[in-house]
Parts: sequence; C-alpha cells; structure tokens
Amino acid sequence: MLKNGERIDDLNLNGLKIIQHESKFKFGMDAVLLSNFVYTKKGDKIVDLGCGTGIIPILIAGKSNDTHIIGVEIQKEVSDMAYRSVMLNNLTDRITIINDDIRKIVDKLGIEKYDIVTTNPPYMPCETGFDKNNESENISRYELNGNLEDFIKVTWRLLKFGGKFFLVHRADRLVDIVYNLRKYNLEPKKIRFVQPYIDEKPNLVLVEAKKGAKMGLNIIKPLYVYRDNGKYTDELIEIYGKTSIEEG
Amino acid sequence: MLKNGERIDDLNLNGLKIIQHESKFKFGMDAVLLSNFVYTKKGDKIVDLGCGTGIIPILIAGKSNDTHIIGVEIQKEVSDMAYRSVMLNNLTDRITIINDDIRKIVDKLGIEKYDIVTTNPPYMPCETGFDKNNESENISRYELNGNLEDFIKVTWRLLKFGGKFFLVHRADRLVDIVYNLRKYNLEPKKIRFVQPYIDEKPNLVLVEAKKGAKMGLNIIKPLYVYRDNGKYTDELIEIYGKTSIEEG
Repeated sequence: MLKNGERIDDLNLNGLKIIQHESKFKFGMDAVLLSNFVYTKKGDKIVDLGCGTGIIPILIAGKSNDTHIIGVEIQKEVSDMAYRSVMLNNLTDRITIINDDIRKIVDKLGIEKYDIVTTNPPYMPCETGFDKNNESENISRYELNGNLEDFIKVTWRLLKFGGKFFLVHRADRLVDIVYNLRKYNLEPKKIRFVQPYIDEKPNLVLVEAKKGAKMGLNIIKPLYVYRDNGKYTDELIEIYGKTSIEEG
Repeated sequence: MLKNGERIDDLNLNGLKIIQHESKFKFGMDAVLLSNFVYTKKGDKIVDLGCGTGIIPILIAGKSNDTHIIGVEIQKEVSDMAYRSVMLNNLTDRITIINDDIRKIVDKLGIEKYDIVTTNPPYMPCETGFDKNNESENISRYELNGNLEDFIKVTWRLLKFGGKFFLVHRADRLVDIVYNLRKYNLEPKKIRFVQPYIDEKPNLVLVEAKKGAKMGLNIIKPLYVYRDNGKYTDELIEIYGKTSIEEG
C-alpha cells in the first residue's frame, strides 16, 4: 500500500486516513476549511479540481451520504496516492480519481452534468518566484497547469444550471476570483474570510458561487483561527474535531 | 445662513461645521470612515461624486493642505446646503460645489484631469422597495440617478492615469464593486471591511482602487466599530476624535 517516503495520516473523521509523501505537498488547513464549508444533498455529483492526494474528496465523502466525488489530479504519482487512499478507506464506490489535466477534463466528464465543483487550486501566479528543486511542490503551489481563470472556466462548463462552486484561495486573490466568477456566470453568493487573529488581515477566503444565480451576496463573519493567547478558537476546534490538521 | 428645518452640526475637526436638514438624509459613519480612509498629497485635485451636504469635501479639506475638492450633487436644495456649509467654514477657495447629475459631469469637468475621486454613493439598487414619501432621502439612498457602474464609469473618465478612487459602500455589494472596477481599469488595491462587532458580518466596505494599476490587492484587517460591551473601539474613538459622528 505504501511506497518509499510515504506515510499514513489519520483524519480523525469516521476512521478515515490519507496517504501523504514526506517530501511532497501535504494538505493544509485550507483544504479542511473548504471541506467544512461545502454542503451537499443526497445524490450530488461532485468534481474536485486539482484534488492532490484526495483530501477534499475523502473529507466530503466522510461527512456526506450518497454523494459521488470525482477527483482530478494532473500529477501521476500524486493521483496514484489519492487512488490508494480511496482504496484504504473503502471508498471506491464513492470516489473516482482521474489522472488528467483539468483543462482537458470537460471532454471526459461531460458538460453541465455536475451539482457541485470544489477546488483548492494552486495559489500563486507563475510570475512569482518558486523553488526549482521540487517539481511536485511547484505544481501544487503555482499556476503551472491552469490558472484561476482556467479553473473557473472549467467549473462553468461542468456545472448544471443552479449548480454550486466552492473555492478556497488566498484572500489577496479576491479580485481575480470575483471578476472571473461573474464573467463565467458563476455568481458569488457567500464569502467568508479566514483571519489568523482578530487583529490581523485575512489570509484565506472561502467562496460559494452558483451558476446562473441572480446577484445577491452574503459576506458572513470571519473565521478566526487563533485566540489572543495563541490557542485555537472554539470554532476551529469544532472543525478540528472532525479532522486532524497538518499545516501544509 | 439657515433655512427652515436646517441646523448646524459641529464636526469636531478644526472647528468645522456642517448644515443639515432635520428631515433629509444626514451624513453617517460611512462618510466619516471614507474621509479617514482617503489620503492625499499636496496639490491634489479631487472630485467627490454625489457629495450630499458636502461632508466628504469638508472633512478632506479639514485634514489636508493645498488640495482642491469639487463636490457634485444632483439635488438642488442639498447642493445649496453644501455650498452654504463651504461658506460657513471659509472654504470657498478649497471646495467648489456643483449642482449636476454625475452622469453628465465629465463634459463639465474634463477627462483625465483629477488625482482622486471619492464617493459615498446611494447604496440600494432601484429594484428594492423604498419609501415613496421622502424623495430627497430616496435620491440619497437609491440608485435613481446613476447606479454603481455609472459612478465607476464616470470615475474612470475623470481620473488621470495612476489616479486613485476611494469608495465606501455596503459590504454585500462587493461583487458589483470589484467586477466593475476591474472592468473600467480601476484595479482594487486596498479593501477594508467594517464590522459592527467582532462576531458579526461586515456591513460596510472601504475600497481604494488605482487607474491602470497592475493587479495586487491588500485586504487589511477589519475595522471593528464596537467592543463586546457596546462601547466604541479605540480605533473608532481615534477617528471620532477628529470628527463627531451622527449615525445616518
């Protein structure tokens, strides 16, 4: 089950586990917060774009019933880890992992067939400098294989009319997010900022958009990660209760 | 100096005062927060779109030196109050009040001649219901004479390349704000949300955009209005120290 350099981490949710590689990108708090932000209904067909080791499909499967999630991951070795984690958790009937480029996935998955699309995409534009020594980390962190607009354009094609998109991203990409969502008829309906501390700027943003919806936004109160004393807030602990978190 | 139903309010800033009418729209915390959010440099030529009773031009004049501010207000009686407030404060050499429709003002003011545009525009789209008994309040609160896109389009034409736009609006209009700013090449550079309490959603948003700038956003920490005990936060008190506030 495990290859060289890999380990199994417990997710503290219904006994779920995940395989991660010591020297590759490991899931962070953002993936856990996104999974917590997503809500599903029975029978939902879900696609997670850029699923990495499968953290979001596995967490969504763990907290929902009768949903099916397709995870798309461009890196062969990483998608292989995701597939083995799905097997490890006996979730092969709930989760399908596809090793492909998200920019080509619509031909394979079909147009307007999905109820929900989720993504925790690479955060950094390619212009910004990156570590040339770790190709796998670079692919996970930088927009080397699809930028934010690509992810949003693909989402627009995958979603049914009325379908929902759930995204986590860096807060300072807000303009790109909102501009492109409206451009592709995915109206932002709910935004939540994540702040490390009450007196710090937000570093992450959670966004829910709906295909074809009228305008009408709800910016809910921020999610604060730490209290003044450096301990996690009650809300974070509640989310943690469902999942152990490794900061990526 | 005063007409029937009018009163003079002290602004607690360098002895500045403002004339307001008992039954018309009175300036609120939003105008004061916007004036505080604006920063100017010597010689700046500034336009305030929809200036109402002149609160923003007067506060900016009070906190800056050697700037000139043009306030544009469509309501004859309200612009007349603004003009009399400018006289009352001996600011006729610093502030010019023009009674006109912001949608027609570019012909009068000229294209790309201004360093800064500010606005605290009507917040509510016309589709939402309003009180038909107070026309002046309606004009101040509803997009009857120019919607948000009109205000942004006019700003784009007035500003020099590199000029700055400062806006305060309802937080739930964020998508319309950001989408239209980028559409008109006014890149949002700084966003600050205003929250009544730490555990409540933001109700206002302050935005600084720059004409022709590259993308690159800074979302600074929220401005909290009240502490848990219902008293103003230190930051609000500091802003108050410069200006007394009537909640509109």
